[in-house]
Amino acid sequence: MAARVTMADVLAARRRIGSFVHRTGLTPSLALSETTGQTILLKNEQQQLTGSFKLRGATNAVLSLSDEERGRGVAAASTGNHGRALSHAAKAAGARAVICMSSLVPSNKVEAIKALGAEARIVGKSQDDAQIEVDRLVAEEGFIDVPPFDRAEVIAGQGTIGLDILEDAPELDAVLVPLSGGGLIAGVALAIKTLSPRTRVIGVCMERGAAMVACLAAGKPVEIEELETLADSLGGGIGLSNRYTFSMVRDLVDETIVLTEREIAEAIAHGYFKEREVLEGAAAVGIGAILSGKFVPQGPTALVLSGKNIDMSVHAQIVAGTHKALSEAA
Amino acid sequence: MAARVTMADVLAARRRIGSFVHRTGLTPSLALSETTGQTILLKNEQQQLTGSFKLRGATNAVLSLSDEERGRGVAAASTGNHGRALSHAAKAAGARAVICMSSLVPSNKVEAIKALGAEARIVGKSQDDAQIEVDRLVAEEGFIDVPPFDRAEVIAGQGTIGLDILEDAPELDAVLVPLSGGGLIAGVALAIKTLSPRTRVIGVCMERGAAMVACLAAGKPVEIEELETLADSLGGGIGLSNRYTFSMVRDLVDETIVLTEREIAEAIAHGYFKEREVLEGAAAVGIGAILSGKFVPQGPTALVLSGKNIDMSVHAQIVAGTHKALSEAA
Repeated sequence: MAARVTMADVLAARRRIGSFVHRTGLTPSLALSETTGQTILLKNEQQQLTGSFKLRGATNAVLSLSDEERGRGVAAASTGNHGRALSHAAKAAGARAVICMSSLVPSNKVEAIKALGAEARIVGKSQDDAQIEVDRLVAEEGFIDVPPFDRAEVIAGQGTIGLDILEDAPELDAVLVPLSGGGLIAGVALAIKTLSPRTRVIGVCMERGAAMVACLAAGKPVEIEELETLADSLGGGIGLSNRYTFSMVRDLVDETIVLTEREIAEAIAHGYFKEREVLEGAAAVGIGAILSGKFVPQGPTALVLSGKNIDMSVHAQIVAGTHKALSEAA
Repeated sequence: MAARVTMADVLAARRRIGSFVHRTGLTPSLALSETTGQTILLKNEQQQLTGSFKLRGATNAVLSLSDEERGRGVAAASTGNHGRALSHAAKAAGARAVICMSSLVPSNKVEAIKALGAEARIVGKSQDDAQIEVDRLVAEEGFIDVPPFDRAEVIAGQGTIGLDILEDAPELDAVLVPLSGGGLIAGVALAIKTLSPRTRVIGVCMERGAAMVACLAAGKPVEIEELETLADSLGGGIGLSNRYTFSMVRDLVDETIVLTEREIAEAIAHGYFKEREVLEGAAAVGIGAILSGKFVPQGPTALVLSGKNIDMSVHAQIVAGTHKALSEAA
């Protein structure tokens, strides 16, 4: 496939993954609608199977493999949302999945991957060591590498979220999307801009390690230091040899917004107390953009909530008001 | 309609309400599956629009009205899940809804009903006063009374949950369902027993005010004192002139289980820490039945989680471990 994703790919993805993923709901936030005077809608991908939107892209990638490729199996080095999603997708498709991780990964994360049906391979002491094992599996044993965002089928799978949103709310002024490697926002923006060109697509991330924002400013993929953040699912770079997401985000996304850790913590607290949802930091950034006043809705607005796989001891600290980020200067 | 609900009513309800309610997902609980050694699945009706399953029955009832009836409007005295559901359903169907409530109802509950598009009528100082106003609206102004559970269309609407569950997991040993007035469990049991007779249906409620359990023991509807409980959505009687739910529950439900307040609190805590879901007490009873050992799964088991509209200050106390129910004797 050429380094290009089209709306036809999104429609094909929807058809392909339809019976393997959950079509999540779009629910009004009474609290945010009251605060802003505009209709604010929440796209509940934290309610997706495996607890994050990643399942859509991973499932589309696995189901797009030929029978021969599927027989070889898939490999990845993520123990986070992508690793969970790929494990679940591979099991559903009857493919072998090997998730490589270092010996420092906590046992509960290892067990979660195993419970989803994948093989957990413990290698070395860092994420880099795990990635080296993935590269070896691909080079020497014929495994298929399914990367977390920079692959056409992954982007097309995430794009089905944009399709869902517009089916449920055809007249939107804006959609706010968590921004990281860009797989989610590239797919969503492709669908939104194709189907409703006047709807603005806004990317939101944390200021601590805003990789795509730095790349957009530089006009090309650049390296960025990864920092500790409540929105840890948004951490990491976009890859210096980025093929798809950088140009799609550059061409399709209207604006980007960055948030402080305190703004993210307050958004997680809002998600719990006002929406009655457990959200990971990455999922709460759209709420944070509104609560901070950095985004002022001008009409009906949808927020993509991306996942709920937060460390619950961190979440409980935010609920109790004792998390350090809540004491930072505003 | 005769005092009988059939599977055809459930299928018709599904078709009628399909584009008005969310088809919630059925997700495996890794934690409960590991604990029990059986596959435990969660039917996520807390993720339903308006935050509870009640929307299904209310929507089916409103959409089943004739144009003439719909023009007269609907009325109810509930400020809880049924009131929210009826408000939302009426608005979606273009019908007027009047929700009557006493002047003691907290303003946030009044605002929530208004935000859903219904008219909030403040009358007197008790729930009884509010019900008198509903009766007056019905008798003098032609409004249609949509009761919370003992109506054929409401039961058929809730039955669509059973249909969903078996489509997603056709081979279940048991389904655990919150038990109160019986609208939910009657509908679910009708669908389950019709489609998969060998699947057991088990009702679970709190021991403080277990109305249907007392009625089953007495062999007829009886009055029971309503007590304060964490599962407040399950409070209240089944009505001495019960038409549908008592006989359906008696004939279709295999077993009932009652829980202490501590067991319910621990189930809410499990929902938060292990499933990353905010659950009201009523919604957590299936989890409580398993964690307490009062139900021991013998095969694949689904738990109906019914809603998330809990008082968040109570929920936060449970998360913090400071709620009084957690200190009760086991």
